[in-house]
Amino acid sequence: MRRLLSTQALAPKVVFSGIQPTGIPHIGNYVGALRQWAQFQQKEPDAKLLYSLVDLHAITVPQARDQFRRWRRESLASLLAIGLNPERCTIFYQSSVPAHAELMWILSCTASFGYLSRMTQWKQKLNLPSNADLDGRPVGSRLKLGLFSYPVLQAADILVHRATHVPVGDDQKQHLEFARECVTNFNHAYGPLLIEPQTITPTVHRIMSLTDPTTKMSKSHKTERSRILITDKPDDIKAKLASAVTDSIPGISYDPAARPGISNLLDILSTFDALQRTPSQLAQEYSDLHPKKLKEMVSDAVITGLDGVRARFLELLEGDGKYLDFVEKDGTRKAIQSAEETMCLVKEAIGF
Amino acid sequence: MRRLLSTQALAPKVVFSGIQPTGIPHIGNYVGALRQWAQFQQKEPDAKLLYSLVDLHAITVPQARDQFRRWRRESLASLLAIGLNPERCTIFYQSSVPAHAELMWILSCTASFGYLSRMTQWKQKLNLPSNADLDGRPVGSRLKLGLFSYPVLQAADILVHRATHVPVGDDQKQHLEFARECVTNFNHAYGPLLIEPQTITPTVHRIMSLTDPTTKMSKSHKTERSRILITDKPDDIKAKLASAVTDSIPGISYDPAARPGISNLLDILSTFDALQRTPSQLAQEYSDLHPKKLKEMVSDAVITGLDGVRARFLELLEGDGKYLDFVEKDGTRKAIQSAEETMCLVKEAIGF
Repeated sequence: MRRLLSTQALAPKVVFSGIQPTGIPHIGNYVGALRQWAQFQQKEPDAKLLYSLVDLHAITVPQARDQFRRWRRESLASLLAIGLNPERCTIFYQSSVPAHAELMWILSCTASFGYLSRMTQWKQKLNLPSNADLDGRPVGSRLKLGLFSYPVLQAADILVHRATHVPVGDDQKQHLEFARECVTNFNHAYGPLLIEPQTITPTVHRIMSLTDPTTKMSKSHKTERSRILITDKPDDIKAKLASAVTDSIPGISYDPAARPGISNLLDILSTFDALQRTPSQLAQEYSDLHPKKLKEMVSDAVITGLDGVRARFLELLEGDGKYLDFVEKDGTRKAIQSAEETMCLVKEAIGF
Repeated sequence: MRRLLSTQALAPKVVFSGIQPTGIPHIGNYVGALRQWAQFQQKEPDAKLLYSLVDLHAITVPQARDQFRRWRRESLASLLAIGLNPERCTIFYQSSVPAHAELMWILSCTASFGYLSRMTQWKQKLNLPSNADLDGRPVGSRLKLGLFSYPVLQAADILVHRATHVPVGDDQKQHLEFARECVTNFNHAYGPLLIEPQTITPTVHRIMSLTDPTTKMSKSHKTERSRILITDKPDDIKAKLASAVTDSIPGISYDPAARPGISNLLDILSTFDALQRTPSQLAQEYSDLHPKKLKEMVSDAVITGLDGVRARFLELLEGDGKYLDFVEKDGTRKAIQSAEETMCLVKEAIGF
């Protein structure tokens, strides 16, 4: 085992990341995560890349079966459409790899209940105040165990593949910290087997809703106009941006607090800008532009940036679906193999 | 799916039970559970019988690896030694069947946190008062998620094999009630797939410690003399019973509250009595007996009752161990098959 471990220490980077298969990704998902996933294929030629459609996480809230099934399929097609190469990466559904749930249980046995209860995402998902406590009546009657314990499953997702690097947004940083805590607890009990993952933080700004630019762009927002899907038609992209909420202050300037709508448009333009200008640079350059013109520029940049995604997506979902079936099957096989290597070490260390 | 379900309704009884592989079973485990497991082989000729060594439950508290590995092996040998026939039953290690952890996660997503927090066993295991609340400091710092959430794993153990009948002791009744609650929650969300298990309660009295007859006989009690293992030598059984704590009241009478030691001896005698007399009947019949004589009678009955267990146990653990390996492998195969049938239905219903 010692020999295996030292080999592991010399092994190349392992990148793991996941996305919930709860609808076609929007441009916020794309520039905040997926585009980076694709870029790793060239930028990290020696890294092992694992990308998971985390469907076990998606069921911490109720899902309608037929829609969920369609979403899972569309999510897989989306990952391929943005340029993930299934020969280069391991793309898989979390629910196809039982080791995620197995390691979750094992981590649960050394994971501190108190640490978990101080994490706040379950309170947000239930729209509870941040001072809501676990013994309170509204919590007890509405909270499900899965929503409370899912940071442990998230830790298992990462640790079961011995990931060294995990790209995450700001809102996931506390979960990565918790995953490192899970490593400490497990390794303290069973020996230095699990690897502490490092965070890779995206450099781009978070993309906000087009209809309410003070909230994050979201797959679950009621208004479809609030988000641009990576598979939207050019005309729809134009229409959504044309109706984006801005303000009546003359000219263009970058000030996310005072001018959230305009600043969000500049953020979007910046992330799709061929010249890689920052939002502030763009604001200076186009300070006199009419918002309508700015929106047209953003439309053009987004349409160019997403060129080909829609066509590839539709092609993948048309016909007999055999190629998607093959990608799913091959990804499952590779992910199971990756996870089993860790589970063998873990089970040996526990005495199973 | 509808057809499958109605077939299931006509299917024979499925009995599931489990024991933690944390040492060789004692006579309390034997008469309270294991002997009944063996009897089902004849009494329920059409029932599917599944018996699990629940090693995932054992790690909710720390285990020393080498001892734990030995215990797992000895526990399997113990089940065979008391007469479980691996061709008639499915005997398996819980950790060998990933579907237990998979279904646990799925049940977690509909399991009420409030209901779980009202269950009390985790407080007992941490020696906390029954009014300890989850937000209190001593709880947060000592409680691990696994200890809190293990009733959900226990529910998954039962439900993943579509068990119709579960033999449990009094102390497990609230967990069976919780398992039925898990069925209600899952079936409400996903359709009537999981089966509500019924409880089979053993008719025998609980066997108490020989050194402290007000507490249950336990594998984890410090004093070895407190328990009789099913593999103990006849001389050890005699010696342990000879030193069993009784009282100085003259004669023999059955009164568990006032005379716990004597009553425990009568309970043991009754459970091993060839004439199947109740403890009260035995007390009447032997009312004038000296406690020393009673202890000798109990010894004889226990030694006769366990006749052959020790020899078979030693034979199974001697030699190359190939037979135990075969039993393990075959049990794993059958248990995986049993669990996969349910998981296919469950995953289909969710939309995985």
